[in-house]
Amino acid sequence: MGKAACFYAVEGVDGSGKSGMVACIVDHLTANGTPAIATREPGGTPQGEKLRALLLSGADDAWDQQSELLMMTAARVEHVRRVIVPTLERGTSVVSDRYVGSTIAYQGAGRGMAETYIRDLHKQAVGDVWPDLVVILDLDPEIGLARSRQRLSAGAIDEGRFETLDLDFHRRIRQSFLDQAARDPGRHVVIDALGTPEEVRARAAQAIEAWRTR
Amino acid sequence: MGKAACFYAVEGVDGSGKSGMVACIVDHLTANGTPAIATREPGGTPQGEKLRALLLSGADDAWDQQSELLMMTAARVEHVRRVIVPTLERGTSVVSDRYVGSTIAYQGAGRGMAETYIRDLHKQAVGDVWPDLVVILDLDPEIGLARSRQRLSAGAIDEGRFETLDLDFHRRIRQSFLDQAARDPGRHVVIDALGTPEEVRARAAQAIEAWRTR
Repeated sequence: MGKAACFYAVEGVDGSGKSGMVACIVDHLTANGTPAIATREPGGTPQGEKLRALLLSGADDAWDQQSELLMMTAARVEHVRRVIVPTLERGTSVVSDRYVGSTIAYQGAGRGMAETYIRDLHKQAVGDVWPDLVVILDLDPEIGLARSRQRLSAGAIDEGRFETLDLDFHRRIRQSFLDQAARDPGRHVVIDALGTPEEVRARAAQAIEAWRTR
Repeated sequence: MGKAACFYAVEGVDGSGKSGMVACIVDHLTANGTPAIATREPGGTPQGEKLRALLLSGADDAWDQQSELLMMTAARVEHVRRVIVPTLERGTSVVSDRYVGSTIAYQGAGRGMAETYIRDLHKQAVGDVWPDLVVILDLDPEIGLARSRQRLSAGAIDEGRFETLDLDFHRRIRQSFLDQAARDPGRHVVIDALGTPEEVRARAAQAIEAWRTR
């Protein structure tokens, strides 16, 4: 079981099954003797959840893209300082539904902001805190959006704002996650998210175990 | 009367009389034939007011200083894009109760964050939008805090969070405003804020007229 407490981030387009995957990884780690907590972004702290409520509701033009980036990063500052780092320090793993990879994908590739600016801001405001492993759930965004619109209309999720953007926006998001993985393969695994939840979770468990025993 | 629509910011320690001064400058400009609006930071837009509510309430440690800076800047992005620039473009002057000078003073000199970082973030996120004239109401913070604590306990103001910080913090704020004025005198006037509101407003009206006819 080689590795000590680790920081995992689960990334992917909307509707790719991230929150279920987070729960599955936490269960998997716990069953294997490593305590772990599930958390999410934007959010994960009372402060961050307040920013989440502002960011993910309303029309797409409710916030300028610059404000959106700053508020996402502010929520991350709180999350890292108050939850992620203290949890890792007491030997418990952290599994987060989204992290800075989503900011690079949505605000960078999606909105067109410079990735160097996003990374510099992260280093300056949040610090040099990056996941040990990023699990990317790769899915055609057309399928993901259909799933998440269904959950949205059923009232099961709160984040309507990004779903209103066009398919091309979400295709750029998917490509950005694949590019992030290709550039830093030691810290990323890409999981095909097409299939039943059981199939996808089995693939992820296998990939994570392979990474943990590398 | 020389100048067209201008962007004025009123700065000063808590309790120095900024909001009354903003109203007075708007009246003075309007009486002299220049339409002007009063606005404030953080706030000035529905988005910014939501961030203001998060930022100015709660305990001092409710937000990390990095988040505080990012959220102040996000509120400013909205204010500049949705109010300040469009208002100036249609020929109306803008008078704001606080602007980036307060961020340099509170988050920079007060909290100890690097001024270059604050200025770089401003340029990157907000753009190169600076006031034409900054009116600094200079006051011993001991007097200002006594005033604003009185209004706070009377329920007349909402911003309790910075009032809880010690006097030394507020002395650094005052000094920062004076330093900002000394470094860029063409864009700043410093007004002695000790005296009756009428006395202080008469000083300010005179200084602004002198600047406008320079």
